Amino acid sequence: MSRTEPAVPPPPDRARVQEAAWWLSGRVVRTPVLNSPVIDRLAGARVLLKAENLQAGGSYKMRGAMLAVGRLAAAGHGGVVAQSTGNHAVAVALAARRHGLTATVVLPADAAQTKVARARAAGAEVVVAGTTLDERVATARQISETRGHPLIDAYDHPDVIAGQGSASLELIEEAERVGSPLDALVVPVGGAGGVAGACLAAAGTTIQVYGVEPVGCDSLARSLAAGRPTPVAPAPTIADGLRPTCVGELPFAIARDAIRGVVRVDDDQIADAFRLLLMELKVLVEPSGAAGLAGALRLAASLGDDVVDRPGAGPEGGRREEYRTVGVVLTGGNVEAELVARLATRQLADLTSVEEVAA
Amino acid sequence: MSRTEPAVPPPPDRARVQEAAWWLSGRVVRTPVLNSPVIDRLAGARVLLKAENLQAGGSYKMRGAMLAVGRLAAAGHGGVVAQSTGNHAVAVALAARRHGLTATVVLPADAAQTKVARARAAGAEVVVAGTTLDERVATARQISETRGHPLIDAYDHPDVIAGQGSASLELIEEAERVGSPLDALVVPVGGAGGVAGACLAAAGTTIQVYGVEPVGCDSLARSLAAGRPTPVAPAPTIADGLRPTCVGELPFAIARDAIRGVVRVDDDQIADAFRLLLMELKVLVEPSGAAGLAGALRLAASLGDDVVDRPGAGPEGGRREEYRTVGVVLTGGNVEAELVARLATRQLADLTSVEEVAA
Repeated sequence: MSRTEPAVPPPPDRARVQEAAWWLSGRVVRTPVLNSPVIDRLAGARVLLKAENLQAGGSYKMRGAMLAVGRLAAAGHGGVVAQSTGNHAVAVALAARRHGLTATVVLPADAAQTKVARARAAGAEVVVAGTTLDERVATARQISETRGHPLIDAYDHPDVIAGQGSASLELIEEAERVGSPLDALVVPVGGAGGVAGACLAAAGTTIQVYGVEPVGCDSLARSLAAGRPTPVAPAPTIADGLRPTCVGELPFAIARDAIRGVVRVDDDQIADAFRLLLMELKVLVEPSGAAGLAGALRLAASLGDDVVDRPGAGPEGGRREEYRTVGVVLTGGNVEAELVARLATRQLADLTSVEEVAA
Repeated sequence: MSRTEPAVPPPPDRARVQEAAWWLSGRVVRTPVLNSPVIDRLAGARVLLKAENLQAGGSYKMRGAMLAVGRLAAAGHGGVVAQSTGNHAVAVALAARRHGLTATVVLPADAAQTKVARARAAGAEVVVAGTTLDERVATARQISETRGHPLIDAYDHPDVIAGQGSASLELIEEAERVGSPLDALVVPVGGAGGVAGACLAAAGTTIQVYGVEPVGCDSLARSLAAGRPTPVAPAPTIADGLRPTCVGELPFAIARDAIRGVVRVDDDQIADAFRLLLMELKVLVEPSGAAGLAGALRLAASLGDDVVDRPGAGPEGGRREEYRTVGVVLTGGNVEAELVARLATRQLADLTSVEEVAA
């Protein structure tokens, strides 16, 4: 690599998330915090939803990507490389274009086509590599070395964690501003960058942070139990963004002592949450993003089977039934039209019908 | 009627819209103003979209209903009556519940079922009366007289016009705040209450206000040409909220000298706008609301056939090709799941594909 000025971001902490939020102000969308009486009634708590599906690029990944690419651009790099199941690739592509850098993004063969199209539309070179994380990482590393362009990891990266954490920080601050401070904060987990950022954003407060994982894609829950990053062979799920084989080293190091627990949700619960968000909140959220609300609804229902507390973070850490206000980060909204049509007309399976609930 | 204290709202003007906005602050949702680079590129202008689909009750009708019901509650009334194709009924039902009044709402037999369910869920008594405006008005008047509960008209009412106008006022103010003051403001037209409110909100500025009507439901365009409220036999349209037989007397009196013109849109154009809003902006807007964006896109395309200037408001009033920023009120988001599914998967008919446009 010919560059003599490597850009090394500092290790992330709460101050770093605050700096990230400050730097990103005006560079990304200040997304609204939404709520719905019907969702509140279903949850038995006030649920404040940070609509990062309305973010530039369609997901909160834009935050970390802007921060990381901005730092590399300032250090004089001419291009960047990224691999992801989709949204991080779209975000890096857009962030690179905004900073005048080239972007090469490595996506799996089974990526959502809307994400592939969006990355291409943002001017990135799209490389398709197998269906597993290992295949993508190997390809991305090779491209990075050949071209001398740094690789921006989708979650194992301080800027990405701090950037994603700024969404949680804005939600925490907005909840305080409207007089409903958060008791709990729920974030979907893929590689755990977002939930690690949430842990940093909530550091020093009494807010309990939960991750949400699809059943069978529970690397974080297994990692917390084992005390180290533990891979899984991801099971099929409609939440295409939540399928990484293993949580990242750095996100795990942050979350392991800070997170309260993990909620497991199945596809039916994700689909119900998707439809609630669409028909009641009137926003389009991809299944990976809807998983956050699905988790919040399970959490509120206090169904012990679904919620796994981190070892050492027992009920003494605050009883769930006392949560008055729960924050949820709706992480993204990039979804295929065909899936929207299929999920929109699906009946609410195990939730009372909306009309009854609204009555 | 036993009440001795009739509540007579003052005639609406710009100051009344400002008062309405002030009174409604904290009582209704301050909805966000959204935008999308893809929509901007299609329009050839910056398009700022006021997301009133995120309003309480799912439409901007909540504004006028809160104002009107609030005044009647303060005057000591115990109940209210309303008729509408749906959203005004839902809004009056919710506003009545918030003020502790009873509500009776008259809806057509072919109303969107989600609107009927929402009005019932808000505690209103729902009466179904035929399919025409005349049938609904006759039924509503009879109920009003029998019960001694005032009738709140869906558009021919000063509070309703001022309330709906507050959405336009907030959009105008937000556009100024972000440094993109509006050159034009586009509002869908049913009974013309919303566009009349927009005319009041824009009074004293250089903003050109346009109404949007579905082809064959163009009572406002015909009324402007004739110089007096002129009914039409409404043609079929997917925009169920834009089917009144005739614009209201008071809205017409306001709009006739203030509006710049009317844009006519067909169902294909409305469906394209619906899909753009869903897949690009990530919000669910009902066809009647999407008609606003459809009109803005036709306006920007400067396609003369679609845009009818008010007599006397010729090109000297500001050339359309010079509009840099166009505001659109996304009036509501209450739509059947089946229609969402049908429209989501529909191909964009006469707009370039999203991927090409985003490139």
